[in-house]
This record gives sequence, structure tokens and C-alpha cells, in this order.
Amino acid sequence: MKGYIQVYTGNGKGKTTAAYGVAVRAIGAGMKVCLVQFIKGLHSSEFNTFKKLSDSIDIFQYGEGNFIFNEPSEKDIYKAKKGLERLKAIIASGKYQVVILDEINMAVYLQIISIEDIIDILANRPENLEVILTGRYAHPKIIEMADLVTEMNEIKHYYKKGVLAREGIEK
Amino acid sequence: MKGYIQVYTGNGKGKTTAAYGVAVRAIGAGMKVCLVQFIKGLHSSEFNTFKKLSDSIDIFQYGEGNFIFNEPSEKDIYKAKKGLERLKAIIASGKYQVVILDEINMAVYLQIISIEDIIDILANRPENLEVILTGRYAHPKIIEMADLVTEMNEIKHYYKKGVLAREGIEK
Repeated sequence: MKGYIQVYTGNGKGKTTAAYGVAVRAIGAGMKVCLVQFIKGLHSSEFNTFKKLSDSIDIFQYGEGNFIFNEPSEKDIYKAKKGLERLKAIIASGKYQVVILDEINMAVYLQIISIEDIIDILANRPENLEVILTGRYAHPKIIEMADLVTEMNEIKHYYKKGVLAREGIEK
Repeated sequence: MKGYIQVYTGNGKGKTTAAYGVAVRAIGAGMKVCLVQFIKGLHSSEFNTFKKLSDSIDIFQYGEGNFIFNEPSEKDIYKAKKGLERLKAIIASGKYQVVILDEINMAVYLQIISIEDIIDILANRPENLEVILTGRYAHPKIIEMADLVTEMNEIKHYYKKGVLAREGIEK
């Protein structure tokens, strides 16, 4: 089966969770999934669920937590570079049919990962590999390369009511 | 924890999968999830994965398959009514912390479920229940009641290249 490039971008809730939903579907069809998270570095509830599915999904994190509102530190940049190296190895391994690059758009936007590196990886991926890229501010070159792009637009969000991230729902 | 009403609507891919992603997260936090699917009546790959998580998620289907391009039949209407009855029992049971009403927006749009019935259910739900509604054409009254609304907009879709639904990715 030919693999495509899917992008979930925009300012609304549902980008990472949509990628998780594709993972759930792919696992159900016997595929192997790899989730590589950039930017994020925290344990989130979903990892407990993925642990139960660990024959089918591997997870790697290359972030220092949420620095969206700060300048990336040296350590952030170092981790992102490590993530990129690992990503190349993940793809070269041929072990996976779906690779999710969570928050990669944000990593490119913050310039801790270069757009050229990502384009190179996408252009040279195996034919049967589905790659899913999430995060705000998807680079125009990534949108151009992608086969499917959904923009999640925030129409209403309870954060604006002062609701904090809740365990099991947002984290 | 107070439960909210989340809506995923719009014409882009990612509505149902975003709801699945929330399910994965909620399950990881020890919550019980109920997925009620309207319109759809087919087995989809994700059910194999949910089967492995069956201590934490129950699934009910009340559709006859994909009739989006046809008029709903008597049987569709009958099933939707049954689904609505079941939904009331599901909510009344107090067993779940998250209830996903997949394609409910479409069921309301097609008038096989009345907007009044849904509003009544949402308005009278227990305080701690998170309800997630998916599907195109979300009713303005549902958007008004919701705490979180994301519109998934299709920017690019490989269906337009003639790609059919692929097992493990779309079904």
C-alpha cells in the first residue's frame, strides 16, 4: 500500500489526537507505528494506553516540555537534533508503516529543525510509509509536499473560560 | 472533574480520529469511555485495537453503513432511534466519564435524530461527563452549547487524487 503524507495544523484542539486516532486504526490493521514527539517532553496519560499496545507502537520524545512561549534553549536544540538523527534511523529501519512526527511543524517554525532536513526525509522515505506531521504553523513547503492537509480551526475553546489542562482529556 | 462538551466538525479528515485520540488519553488516565457511532455500521480497523482495551471502552453502532449520499431508509431511522434510547441509558448508568457521539452531527443534519433530543440529553447530563460530538454540519444550537469547537477544514485531500479508503488509515 502506498504511504502518504498527512498534515494536521491550525490553532484548534485535535491535531495530536487525530494522529493518535490514525495510530489506533493502523494498529488495528496490524501495522507498526512509531510516534516521535518534538517540543513535548512530559508524560501524558495516553502513554499508559500505548504501553498496553507496545507490541505495535514505539514512542520517542525529543523535547524539554512546553517552551512555546519561551526561546528554545541550547538543550532544546540539542534534543531536536538527536530526534532528527533518530528519525532517520527509524525510517531506514523499515520497521514501521506509520510514523507520526508530533509537533514537528512547531519545531520547524521555531527553527530548531531545518525545513530542508524534513523535506529531505519526506522526499526519500520508502514508498509504503505513511508520515503524519502535526503542529501549528505548518511550513508552506510541507503543505505543498503533503497529500492530505487538515487545518484545525478553533471556533471555541474552554481554555478561554479559564479551564486548565485536565488529566485524561488534555494531558 | 467537570466534564465539557467538545465538538469536532467541518469537512476535513480528523474528526472521528481526534475523538479516538481523546479516548486513548482518557483510558490512560483510568477513565471509562463509551463510543456510540451513528450513521456508520461497518467494522473498521480501530475496533481491533479497542478490543484490546475492552476493559476501558464500550462500542455501540447504530447505523446501516454509509448512506451520506442516499436518503435515510426506514431502517436507518429505526436504528437511530434505538441509538438514542441506548444513549440515554448509557448516560444514566453513570459508568462512563467520556461519551463519544460519532457522526451525531450528521444524524441531526439528516433529521434522523432531532436536535431537541440531543439538546435535552446534553443539558441534563451528569456534571462530570465529557461528551464529544463529531461529524460535519454541526447544528448551530450544538455549537452554542459546546465548550470547545474545532472545525476541521480540508486544505488538501488525496481522495481527490483518486485514492480510495485504505485499511488501517481510513477504515
